[in-house]
Amino acid sequence: MISIDNRPIGIFDSGLGGLTVLKTLSEIYPDEHFIYIGDIARLPYGNKSPETVRKYGEQILNYLIKFNVKLAIIACNTASSVFIDETTFNGLPLFNVITPGAQAAFETSKTKRIGVIGTRTTIQGHSYKNTLLKLSPDLFVIEKACPLFVPLAEEGWLHGDVPEMVAESYLKGLRNESVDTLILGCTHYPILDQVIAQVMGPDVNLIESGKVLARILKSHLSDSSKQQGTIKILATDMTQQFQMMAELILGKDKIFNLELINL
Amino acid sequence: MISIDNRPIGIFDSGLGGLTVLKTLSEIYPDEHFIYIGDIARLPYGNKSPETVRKYGEQILNYLIKFNVKLAIIACNTASSVFIDETTFNGLPLFNVITPGAQAAFETSKTKRIGVIGTRTTIQGHSYKNTLLKLSPDLFVIEKACPLFVPLAEEGWLHGDVPEMVAESYLKGLRNESVDTLILGCTHYPILDQVIAQVMGPDVNLIESGKVLARILKSHLSDSSKQQGTIKILATDMTQQFQMMAELILGKDKIFNLELINL
Repeated sequence: MISIDNRPIGIFDSGLGGLTVLKTLSEIYPDEHFIYIGDIARLPYGNKSPETVRKYGEQILNYLIKFNVKLAIIACNTASSVFIDETTFNGLPLFNVITPGAQAAFETSKTKRIGVIGTRTTIQGHSYKNTLLKLSPDLFVIEKACPLFVPLAEEGWLHGDVPEMVAESYLKGLRNESVDTLILGCTHYPILDQVIAQVMGPDVNLIESGKVLARILKSHLSDSSKQQGTIKILATDMTQQFQMMAELILGKDKIFNLELINL
Repeated sequence: MISIDNRPIGIFDSGLGGLTVLKTLSEIYPDEHFIYIGDIARLPYGNKSPETVRKYGEQILNYLIKFNVKLAIIACNTASSVFIDETTFNGLPLFNVITPGAQAAFETSKTKRIGVIGTRTTIQGHSYKNTLLKLSPDLFVIEKACPLFVPLAEEGWLHGDVPEMVAESYLKGLRNESVDTLILGCTHYPILDQVIAQVMGPDVNLIESGKVLARILKSHLSDSSKQQGTIKILATDMTQQFQMMAELILGKDKIFNLELINL
């Protein structure tokens, strides 16, 4: 007798970057149901105090619990750093993007030279670097904030001269330091993965939150019914830009429901 | 007998873009005192409802009134659009950046073909276009959102290949439409004025809020004492980035006090 757990998986982010995590998970687990919450009305979290981000995160987690989710994923770096030491919330299994990203980089790197890129807030908070150095104090970790990557991704400028030159400018220092592993420490960055890979070269492994989480979740997911999974996207504000980006990130063929909610 | 009014001028913005307005005004009126409020903790205003932006704006205006300012300037496009029809607030003379910017463009343009650039929120709100068309329904107005300009300005990438290519990509449509006047509809954009002017060509007039406001204020300012004016910058949150940008925008030789406040 196989136990079947058809409860949905909850994912949240302050905005739409976490949709890259949703995309990867829904591709690897096509028969799972997903509920995504984007806190568009209150983004960005990066410039808010940890107390405020915790309050918002708890509101969203409590909202997800009403949907009877079996686990929740914090697909937002700022909120992940606030909940980094917690593996459950009110009994609900809780996953952040930092801990498994750092763990995967540590396991992947042969030279123990690791790069981390993210928003200015993420890099200044050193959350990946601190987590990596807890795993092994001998690691060489170099961090670089790449503030233009998010607007480039949101403009859909993924190829060509501008993204290549911006990526070259941000990443050449990390390439020169011969890192063999690069953590994409912002959930927007997988949208730009091709240009990032091109600039870093074929020998550098890119660590993406979505792929890492997919591996980790394997042991947490029992067999689900072999029916088609569903995707529900809830947002605290609805903009044309959000709808356009949801289609760009998830792909036009992905079917999802988009709803406005009040937290 | 000349009346002297040494009360300070109040200026506010959600962030640091309005510092370009402060810079211009303090250069043209070096003996005036200025108090600037940057609502860093709650930026950006662009994705918030008009009701919320009005509430924040009123809080800030009431805070400025406590400093006995003689007039207040809203150096923020989103807040300007909310207060666009008001010339006073609790008796205090009130200036926004949209009305005088549109008026100046209307008066400057010979061909009556006017371009407007701004953030996605400003452009989607059509505040400049609507104000222009009220002045004359026969104007040809073309709008373009330039989301990468703010992060480029904040990165200090003002010259060279990347800003030139980004500007070319955003502005070629306006140039091809032969506008003779371009409204810089975001207070960050004067930081990039050189590359914008280079791409648009020498025949296009750039309309900057700071310069336009300086002309308008002339008739509102009585003689002040011929002493050196002062600049006080108050911010609802303090980041390294804000302090760095304040220096970049105002110039290293400009002396100002920076203070954290709670609204």
